[in-house]
This record gives sequence, C-alpha cells and structure tokens, in this order.
Amino acid sequence: MTIQSFNPPRRILMGPGPSDIAPQVLQALSRPTVGHLDPLFIQMMDEVKQLLQYAFQTDNDFTIAVSAPGSAGMEACFVNLIEPGDKVIVCRNGVFGERMRENVIRAGGIAVVVDDNWGEAVCLDKVESALKAHPDTKILAFVHAETSTGARSDAEALGKLAKQHGALTIVDAVTSLAGIPLKVDEWQLDAVYSGSQKCLSCVPGLSPVTFSPLAIEKILARRSPVQSWFLDQSLVLGYWSGKGKRSYHHTAPVNSLYALHESLIMLNNEGLENAWKRHQEVHNKLKLGLEDLGFEFVVKADVRLPQLNTVFIPQGIDDAKIRGHLLNHYNLEIGAGLGSFAGKAWRIGIMGYGARNENVSLCVKALEEVMAQ
Amino acid sequence: MTIQSFNPPRRILMGPGPSDIAPQVLQALSRPTVGHLDPLFIQMMDEVKQLLQYAFQTDNDFTIAVSAPGSAGMEACFVNLIEPGDKVIVCRNGVFGERMRENVIRAGGIAVVVDDNWGEAVCLDKVESALKAHPDTKILAFVHAETSTGARSDAEALGKLAKQHGALTIVDAVTSLAGIPLKVDEWQLDAVYSGSQKCLSCVPGLSPVTFSPLAIEKILARRSPVQSWFLDQSLVLGYWSGKGKRSYHHTAPVNSLYALHESLIMLNNEGLENAWKRHQEVHNKLKLGLEDLGFEFVVKADVRLPQLNTVFIPQGIDDAKIRGHLLNHYNLEIGAGLGSFAGKAWRIGIMGYGARNENVSLCVKALEEVMAQ
Repeated sequence: MTIQSFNPPRRILMGPGPSDIAPQVLQALSRPTVGHLDPLFIQMMDEVKQLLQYAFQTDNDFTIAVSAPGSAGMEACFVNLIEPGDKVIVCRNGVFGERMRENVIRAGGIAVVVDDNWGEAVCLDKVESALKAHPDTKILAFVHAETSTGARSDAEALGKLAKQHGALTIVDAVTSLAGIPLKVDEWQLDAVYSGSQKCLSCVPGLSPVTFSPLAIEKILARRSPVQSWFLDQSLVLGYWSGKGKRSYHHTAPVNSLYALHESLIMLNNEGLENAWKRHQEVHNKLKLGLEDLGFEFVVKADVRLPQLNTVFIPQGIDDAKIRGHLLNHYNLEIGAGLGSFAGKAWRIGIMGYGARNENVSLCVKALEEVMAQ
Repeated sequence: MTIQSFNPPRRILMGPGPSDIAPQVLQALSRPTVGHLDPLFIQMMDEVKQLLQYAFQTDNDFTIAVSAPGSAGMEACFVNLIEPGDKVIVCRNGVFGERMRENVIRAGGIAVVVDDNWGEAVCLDKVESALKAHPDTKILAFVHAETSTGARSDAEALGKLAKQHGALTIVDAVTSLAGIPLKVDEWQLDAVYSGSQKCLSCVPGLSPVTFSPLAIEKILARRSPVQSWFLDQSLVLGYWSGKGKRSYHHTAPVNSLYALHESLIMLNNEGLENAWKRHQEVHNKLKLGLEDLGFEFVVKADVRLPQLNTVFIPQGIDDAKIRGHLLNHYNLEIGAGLGSFAGKAWRIGIMGYGARNENVSLCVKALEEVMAQ
C-alpha cells in the first residue's frame, strides 16, 4: 500500500466553519507536545479558562473546553443537566434546535418543542406561552445563532423569560461566540456551549462550555449518574479545577489546546467589542457586494447574523457546480444549505480570522465571475 | 489581562502517553485547514480508513477514528453495542477494566465482573467459568494492554472463548495498537478501540475504532436508540462511509486527522511486524538498564508489555521529587502510578516514535543520576 503525505492546498474558508485560521494559531498547534499533567501545561489550561471566561463574559468557575467537537459540548450540557423525566422546552428554528430535541430525548427528558420557521428568530411570545403552559419546565434550550439559517435569536430576552419561570437555560453559542455580543453573566445564561472552529478561528475539535453556579448545583444534586462517563462534568471538574492536585480523567488533546490558547490570546488582544465590530463591518461590505450581484438574504436584516450570511441560490444556478468551481479554481469554500435549505441556499461565513476585507472582495468577485460563465 | 503565547519546552515523553511525536507528524498537523466536507479531505479520510485497517489487521468496513480521546472511543463501543438489560462480562485487572464496568452500568447493561490482581493478565479459566455461569452473556469486555499496570492479556484466547459462548467482544487496545501484535480479524474481535497518542505517536484527541460485521449487525438491530447522539455510530457511518454522498454529522477535527494520517503512513512504511519488533528490542535494552539500577518489574516477564514498563519505586525514594527532577532538569517525563499503584510504581513508556535507542540511554542514565543525589 503506497499512500503519500497529505498536502492540502491553501483554501479560503468562507463556509459555516471550520473558518480561516490565523498562521500563528497553526504555528501554536504544532509546538512540541507535552504531557497532559505537565505543570506547564496545567498552567496553560488555567490561562485557557481565564481567556474563555473573557470570551463568554462570565465569572463562572466552570468554564472549560470539552475535548471534542461542538456536538459533544451540546451533549455535555444536556446529559449533565437533564435527569430522566425533566421537562425541557426546546426552541426549534433550524437544524441545531432539532439536534437539541434529539439530545433531550436521548437523555431521558421530556421535550416540549416551540417551532419557528427556518430563517426566523425564536418567537418570544411562543416561548412565554410554553413556559406558562408548562410550569414544571426545568430547562429552556435554544440556539443563539442558528448555523443552518443565519438567524440570531434574542438570548438576553430568552434568558430573562427562563429566569422569570424558574427554568435554567441551555444555549447553543457555537456560531455566536466572539462574532456577536454574548454576555453569559449579564444575561443570566446557565449552560452555554460553543465550538473552536467558528468565530474563534481555531482548529475544529474542541467545544468551549461554561456552567453557571445554578447549573453546577443541579448537576451536583443529581439522583442518577450522568449517562455518559466521558462527558460527566463532575468527573471532568477534577481535571480542570484549579484547586489542589489534578486528577486524571482522560488525556486532553494537548496540541489542539495550544491552538485554542493562541486564538483566545488573539481575541483578547483585539478586544471582544472590536471583534464584534469587525464582523459587523465586514458583513456590511459583503452584504452590499452580494446584493449588487442580485442575491437575496434568507434572514431579515434585524435578526441577521453578520458572521453567517445565508442567501437564496438564484433561479437556474447549479448549486454543486458553482461551489465546486469556486473550490477548484479559486480555492474558495462557501457552504451548502443544510437540512431544508439544501440546494436552495448558500451559507457564506466570515468568521474570526476569516472576517477580513480581502476575503470579501475575493468572494464577491469570484461569485460574479463564476456565475457569469 | 496579559497572557503570552505558550512556548512549551521540548520534552521527552516516556510516560504512559501522550508519547513522543515524530517531527513530520507535527508538521502534518499544522498544514492549512480545509473544510471537513472538502473532496480532498474526504479522500484523505478514505486513506486513514485503509491505513487503520492495516494497523488493526482487519477488513472491517467500519474502521474509523472517533473525533475524541480514547475514553470516548471506549464509550462509543459500549453505548452502541449494549442495549438496556444486556449482560456483559467485564474483566477487571486495572483502572481501565473498572472504567469499562462504569460504562456498562451507565449504558444500562448488567455487569458481571471477573477480577484479577493488578499487574496480572486476565485469567482465562475465570472468564470461561463466568461465561458458563452466565449463558445469557451478550458481550465479553477486556483490556488487551492495561495502561495502568503494564500487563498484557491474551486477546486471541479471550476472543476465542467469547465466540465459543456466542458472545461479542469489546477490546481496549489503547496501548497495544502498533506496539504488540493485535490481529482483529484473525482473533475474531468485534469492537476494538484505541488512542492516537500511544504507539501510533500521534497527537492526543482521536480514538481509532473498528467494528466487525457482527457488531454492526447488533447495532443495526437495536430496539432502543443509542443514548449518545455524538457517539451514535449509525449516524457517524453516514459521514465515514465510502458510498455516495457524505452526510454531515459533526465537524471532524481536520488537523488532528492530518496528523493521524501521517503517523499511520509512518507505520505503514515501517511495517507492523517491524514496529512490534522495535518495541520489543528497545524494551529489552530498557529492561537491562533498569535491572542494573536495581528496579523490579511489577509484571512478570511472560505477560509484560514492552511498550509500558511498570517498576516498583525503590524504598526511600520520593516519587514526586524524582519525577519533578527528571522533568525540570532533563525535560524527561515518566509516568506516575495510577489507582492502587499511585506512589508505589512508575510507568515508563517507550511507545511509537518514543521507542528509540537514545531515549532509553537517556532515561536510564538520568534515573541513575537523579536517584544518586
């Protein structure tokens, strides 16, 4: 069997993630591996925690990176917070709301689904009605930034509603973290998960999560063990906790954490507000460019995510052919539609390091050229 | 907040893993990230599959890398194969046998534990008695190479026993894969998981797994859904399967898979038998060196793992002080004892790229110098 080393081309990643990665993050990634219990590494993990607290805008002590992709971070929130029989209101306005529902059921919870159209924000009135109709609701789960549609929901208002009805919140911030305002403490969110490969512009494979003291209280008061050993956060706490000796739980993905550390330093140096502003400004330019080409946005302006631009594929355009052409001739990746948007929409991401002026110019021009053919 | 980039020293990793990593693997790791659905990446994943089939010595079509550390690979095997009420015989002769038992219980199975002393192999007679006493056993679970003790169990004979009694096997090959003979098809093993960071000498964070057709049959015949969405292999199949269009399940850890691909190419180029031989030869030298210094091995020679050498800490020696000294003054990491061996034994790993003549010379000399102080 003769297999050659893999030498990928330099792509420009403007899909829904993984996003473009800064050279210094890739550099950090390949630094020499040290042991996962090495004192120097543990010190670095403390810094990752501090930097994540900043990114999430929280003082939560339990703020870590799950050693697996965002889907595992999602599952970590659900399996730790739900006990069999717990009622959970799930807001579903895209693929990831549906995945939340799946998680509730597999964790033995009772899912009450609040549906909204794809491409729209979660409707606050519907959620309030559901909370009133189900006063025994333990958890309200929703997606802050729907990666499948590009719609932003009002996490602050949803968090407030949940609190008014005595429910905890589980929030999908995979695409929102570092791209648009997300203020975990101010908005009183309880369990929030994200991904390394979106607006943090780190390599895929890690899932930052944060749990509020209320969430931790519910976890510690469980009567039944968490169904997942790997994602049991009461065990993971022993490894990430700053107090005393670290206990071994699993082998941390050392090098990926180097990369996350570096990407969080970049965010810290830029400043969160500046990062939010940059995403918005780059989006404004992209929006003009796309509208000039005749594209229509799927999501209305007031709830549109700057970092994930979903546009309808114009009539008569061959979806796969255009995307293939962009990839093969421009090394430019844009995202296909997901779920009910497959074949109907494209998702153009400007996330993290990818949210740069030059990326937008290239993308707009390349689309113009390719669609003219 | 001022936090500097992390610049780790170049450690020599001779603990139980992560192991020393070849420069070309770290190089591969930091190549430009491409999308997880990029045709070039999918082609590379097909190669990873082929290379893993070689490493596992199997034709199993379902041979992939779980996008998370070995503990998640373990859990993937248990939650997919066990349905609530399934009886599982678990062989426990170290930390990882106990972790298997935890997994069985959390997956709703009934665990029948066969205990052996730490540092000894799993006793075939005891397992046979258990299989006879529990004819309704669905699965036999055991650890091939116990990372907590350094003992090797007879996976071939255990696989045969299971088959004779109509049970499937779940096998922990985290430390054995590529270090000692492991022949999945010839030994008729059904679900086998490993880790990227041991004898494959790749970065930590991935868990190679392989499922036999019998295992897949049991998974596809499930009456209840797998409790984990992230680890549900019937969903993962849609992404890794070579047939037709890849479906999105989760975002693969792209760069880590570059590294795994490269480390498997190195193994393929060396040849499995040569890799096994090298581990044995390097072990022989280490053994002589350690015995010269007066060390006694925890595990008897006939079941001793060449790649993981567990030795008793001599009387009067300060465990943490010596390991700290080796780390701080020699950049050399050896492993502490785990579980009931904590403070009583050291674990010296010579795994994958770490199984080199020069590493052994350094380790023996450094131990001599440090213990003489």
